[in-house]
Amino acid sequence: MAYSTTATKLPRVSAEIAAKIDQELMNEDGFSIDQLMELAGLAVAECVHTTINQSDSNKNVLILAGPGNNGGDGLVAARHLYMLGYKPLVYYPKPSKSTLFDGLQTQLHKLKIPFIPASETDQNSLQKAFNDSIYIVDALFGFSFKPPVRGVFIPAMRMLTDSKKPILAVDIPSSWDVNNGPCSDFSYNPEILISLTAPKKSADHFKGRHFIGGRFISKEFAEKYGFKVPPYVGLSQIWEEK
Amino acid sequence: MAYSTTATKLPRVSAEIAAKIDQELMNEDGFSIDQLMELAGLAVAECVHTTINQSDSNKNVLILAGPGNNGGDGLVAARHLYMLGYKPLVYYPKPSKSTLFDGLQTQLHKLKIPFIPASETDQNSLQKAFNDSIYIVDALFGFSFKPPVRGVFIPAMRMLTDSKKPILAVDIPSSWDVNNGPCSDFSYNPEILISLTAPKKSADHFKGRHFIGGRFISKEFAEKYGFKVPPYVGLSQIWEEK
Repeated sequence: MAYSTTATKLPRVSAEIAAKIDQELMNEDGFSIDQLMELAGLAVAECVHTTINQSDSNKNVLILAGPGNNGGDGLVAARHLYMLGYKPLVYYPKPSKSTLFDGLQTQLHKLKIPFIPASETDQNSLQKAFNDSIYIVDALFGFSFKPPVRGVFIPAMRMLTDSKKPILAVDIPSSWDVNNGPCSDFSYNPEILISLTAPKKSADHFKGRHFIGGRFISKEFAEKYGFKVPPYVGLSQIWEEK
Repeated sequence: MAYSTTATKLPRVSAEIAAKIDQELMNEDGFSIDQLMELAGLAVAECVHTTINQSDSNKNVLILAGPGNNGGDGLVAARHLYMLGYKPLVYYPKPSKSTLFDGLQTQLHKLKIPFIPASETDQNSLQKAFNDSIYIVDALFGFSFKPPVRGVFIPAMRMLTDSKKPILAVDIPSSWDVNNGPCSDFSYNPEILISLTAPKKSADHFKGRHFIGGRFISKEFAEKYGFKVPPYVGLSQIWEEK
């Protein structure tokens, strides 16, 4: 009798399907981006809380937030991490221009969460933030990333690849191709990955603890797109694939 | 040595302060109503999950949703309850006309969650939904309720006051005055209350299990308005006052 070694792995989706899922959630299923991002960010915060070293007295968590929705998930996660008792530091070098993203920033400013200044030439502040933190959240680029890495993101990606701290990648590790995985000099392999809504094909290139988050999908919706709702337990917004 | 019997009670806020808190969250702190409602509804769902009889094989939960934001919290809770494995039934007789509320309804329709039809003369369907459910969520009226109870809400309120099922009231029990508590023929005393953001003065008239939800307030914000952030534990979005 043969046993599949991948019995507990959920099916992966392609870049094309991932984009269609987001479109259907917002266009046909009535979700606002505010709602989806709130739940995604909460799932990311739960994932940090679950995988961080709880005995560490240093509670600094560095969140690297990119210019797109992946970065928005990171900004929401920063707020929830604050509420959970952590001390988030945020690097958000290319702020998005929209009411939602303005609001996400304001929420963090009102909580006096520090934002690390960004410049291409002087990356001392960012390096110090890496050094001072016990855990890094990589929310730079999501599934719509196209290489190459540019500008202020180059030093940030270099520090990510060099860091010895635990790193949680949001949805896919930054600078990976969503279908094919590592595709640039900066394509590092983080310790932890949280796939949002559905795991992408690139997750097969990932070595580490893999969580799924985004508990707003029905069984029927998942089946339509060829993936599965994870067997979430109790109130948890995340599930670990083993 | 004297012991205060109210040592673990959080301070209450007035109707006026409750309105100011909501205004500041949205006008100055950058929150969208979508975000706040999502987190409030999630807290309500967690409260149901925490207080429902888990050994009951019947998973029907009836959500009574009014025309305002209290009803919106109920609609969001219905979705999360579905995700948690319950079978929500929704009574939403006076739908609000806004993109957000249209979206909340669409999300539930896509999950094939049944909506109980409403009419003033025939309330058999609603009575059947009460009979068939193991737990009722009262999200009819929030802190801006002004008496009297009217129209389609009269039979719903009568069924609430007559029901022997566990009832969770969202923010304040429907038809209560936010400062003074019971103020009409329908002012029942539910088994469970979840105060959102901060407990209102009327909570002092409540006899039952009292939870606080709305984990998006900082210590400084709460102090400014004379209330306190509950000592939330772990990842929980709710805290029980004892």
